[in-house]
Amino acid sequence: MTETTRIIGIDPGLRRTGWGVIDVLGNSVRFVASGIVTSDGEADLAARLVQLHDGLDEVLHRHQPHEAAIEQTFVNKDAGATLKLGQARGIALLVPARRGLVIAEYAPNAVKKAIVGAGHADKSQIQMMVKVLMPKATFESADAADALAIAMTHAHHRGSAAGRLARAAACS
Amino acid sequence: MTETTRIIGIDPGLRRTGWGVIDVLGNSVRFVASGIVTSDGEADLAARLVQLHDGLDEVLHRHQPHEAAIEQTFVNKDAGATLKLGQARGIALLVPARRGLVIAEYAPNAVKKAIVGAGHADKSQIQMMVKVLMPKATFESADAADALAIAMTHAHHRGSAAGRLARAAACS
Repeated sequence: MTETTRIIGIDPGLRRTGWGVIDVLGNSVRFVASGIVTSDGEADLAARLVQLHDGLDEVLHRHQPHEAAIEQTFVNKDAGATLKLGQARGIALLVPARRGLVIAEYAPNAVKKAIVGAGHADKSQIQMMVKVLMPKATFESADAADALAIAMTHAHHRGSAAGRLARAAACS
Repeated sequence: MTETTRIIGIDPGLRRTGWGVIDVLGNSVRFVASGIVTSDGEADLAARLVQLHDGLDEVLHRHQPHEAAIEQTFVNKDAGATLKLGQARGIALLVPARRGLVIAEYAPNAVKKAIVGAGHADKSQIQMMVKVLMPKATFESADAADALAIAMTHAHHRGSAAGRLARAAACS
């Protein structure tokens, strides 16, 4: 018996956190919704983190995903930017974890490889392939498209893992 | 009329987040409690952030502080460490902010200057001065002592700010 699994992909950022929800049934994926949660750049840091928390929690409440996938943060040489992103990413991990969701993490090049087929792809290629793989998908921003790509990457990998487990069970 | 203000100081860290609670009445400070919230190094990141969240939220629920103070993170050249710390710091800011507390941030050398009188002091000097300034203070670890020092720094600065406001009001 196969059941639909709903996955949320999250692309964390302090100013804009992208999210994308898809349903997976066997090998097929279906677009559900996507969007961004923003924080007010004029507000102080703690208030911005609360805005991200509340916005993301509202999305989870509305769409009730079963599993979450989040991009592994690209650590760059700008330590201040890394710290900011870390703080936003802490919230992006906390919110689904407090709701009991399993959270998978994928490196940016794993996402590119799963969606475009190559570890090096630019944002426009990601967006194009998200539309090719899920024609009904809509996204207002690159962050939402990236979040959908992360969710699809998880659909791809969890499918493989489930397949391996099924084969292992059949052979035991 | 002067009322007691309860302040929590927080020294964020993924493995150990130190906290210290003090009461401030006019120029006097009184030790209330201190401790650390730890996360399980064997658990995955999201689970560890939930542990920090729940532990810190429990401390806030128990001690009901009015204001919070947190150390500004020292950004170093190890980007991976900065990212980890950022994630923990995001939680340390979120928890008091969701409870409606005002959160002040202080640079490490501002804390040292307020407590020891010099911008460069080592951990043992901080611990000694916390004991001198609040003889009844107890702390099991350097992280808890640092958190008390952060709370005391806030007591010092908010006192000054309140004094300035009072003077401004008297002269207007």
